[in-house]
Formats: sequence, C-alpha cells, structure tokens
Amino acid sequence: MKTKAEAFHHTLKDVYYAEKAITQALPKMIDAASDANLKGAFEDHLQETKEHVKLLQKVFASIDKPSEGEKCDAIEGLIKEAEGIIEEASGVALRECLIGAAQAVEHYEIARYGTLREWAKQLKNDRAHDLLSQILDMEKAANAKLTGIAVSGQ
Amino acid sequence: MKTKAEAFHHTLKDVYYAEKAITQALPKMIDAASDANLKGAFEDHLQETKEHVKLLQKVFASIDKPSEGEKCDAIEGLIKEAEGIIEEASGVALRECLIGAAQAVEHYEIARYGTLREWAKQLKNDRAHDLLSQILDMEKAANAKLTGIAVSGQ
Repeated sequence: MKTKAEAFHHTLKDVYYAEKAITQALPKMIDAASDANLKGAFEDHLQETKEHVKLLQKVFASIDKPSEGEKCDAIEGLIKEAEGIIEEASGVALRECLIGAAQAVEHYEIARYGTLREWAKQLKNDRAHDLLSQILDMEKAANAKLTGIAVSGQ
Repeated sequence: MKTKAEAFHHTLKDVYYAEKAITQALPKMIDAASDANLKGAFEDHLQETKEHVKLLQKVFASIDKPSEGEKCDAIEGLIKEAEGIIEEASGVALRECLIGAAQAVEHYEIARYGTLREWAKQLKNDRAHDLLSQILDMEKAANAKLTGIAVSGQ
C-alpha cells in the first residue's frame, strides 16, 4: 500500500467489514437494552447500518473494485468491549455503559468516514464523496440521538 | 457493576489503561512518521498523554479510589490497527493512514471522555467534571490538529 488511492481502497474494505460486524453485534445490544428509547435507537441504527452496507457497495463501484471486507482489528475490539459490558453490567450501569459503548463505535465510524470523505475529495471522486457524506451525516445523527438518550436518563 | 458510580469507576479504569497503552504506542508512530509536521504532532501528543495519565490520577482521587487500569479491548484493537498500518504501508499511504489511525484513537477518547464527563455531572462530582473537561478539550484540539495536517498535505 503506497498511494492515496490504495489507502482509500484499504480503508474502504475496513469500514465495509466494520459495518457488517456491527449488523451482527447490534441484535445482542437490542436484546440487552431494557430502556424502550435505547432499544428503539439500536433498532433504527440496525436498519441504517444495513443501508450503509449498500451505500458502501456503491463506493466500491465508483472505484471499479468488488465489494469486499478486510478484517478490522479496531471494530473487533470495540465490539468485544460492548459484549463484555453485556456480560458484566446490569441495571443502570448496563443502560449507561451500553450507550457509552455504542457512542464509542459511532465515534470510530465518524473518524473513518471523515478520513475517507477527505480522501475522496482529494482523489476527485465526487460520487464517493457524496455517498460517504450521506453515511457520515447519518452516523453523526445516530451519535447525537444517543447523547440525547444519555442526558435525558439522568 | 450495577450503579452509575460503578459504571464511572469501571470506565475510568478503562481510559486509564488506554492512556497508558497510548504512551507505549506513540513512540512507534513517531518513528514511522517521516513528515515533520506529523512527527511533531505525535511528539506533542505523547507529552499530553502523559499529562492525561496524571489528570486521571486526580479523578481517581476524587472518588477515593486507587489509580489502576483495567484491560480495554477497544484501545487494544485500535492500537493493533495502527501497528498493522506501520507494517503494511509506505510513502503517501503510510502518512495518510497514520493520520487516520491516530484520529480513530482520538475519536475513541473523545467518546469516552464525553461519557465520563456527563456521568461526573450527573453524579455531582464537580472536581472530576472539571478534570475530564480539561482532558476532553485537549483530545478535541489534538484531533483538529491532525485534521489540519491531513487537509494541508493533499
């Protein structure tokens, strides 16, 4: 991996793997959430995550590459942390830590999509820039919704 | 772990472990960065991270607990990702991916300190709230500096 275009392709495979991993992890978080607002937010985000997978397939198409993931250590660690919380926490701590773990995942995605979008701009790939902007905006909105739930539950 | 205070203490141990892990990882990123601006930003952040460790010790003191870390899967994954990049990338891709990996770590920290600060407020621990605000502001500034380097290098 030497060029910006190769960095873009590599990181795109990382986030594709990450989004698919999140679709596997969210049902466990939905089950663990007893708060109706939080459960609803996770359910909505599962639908959005499935949409992100489809949008990413269009980004792969924009660079004439097949849609394929590559194991991403960061999301594996973030999901392992969330699963650990489900095992270790209960009551108020479970609710609060589930929100916290989900926001850590959102922030990871915000970081990666921010980077990818900037690279798309520098590589003059307008199609990818637009698609990645759509996903980035949805991740930011999902994070803001979780902040609202965290603050309202005090 | 059942209460908000227990969630706070648990997550504080997580970030304490994470900051210490980052002080171990940053020297490798400093070595790998050939861009003088980026190397300087990593060097500055290493000093800041050592300061965060000391500030966190004061947060532990504010809840009458000893300063101790607890293994944090998320930061382990994020650091493993950064180390993988140093092995796999070179040239422009190395520079770009190092910035991206560092911003993913910053965003993780921004998420965790945002959560901890909100909990400190809800737990009416003004001392912890102030200390965590200081760290959060520094993490946001570090992330903004990296964005500046990423955008200026196109």
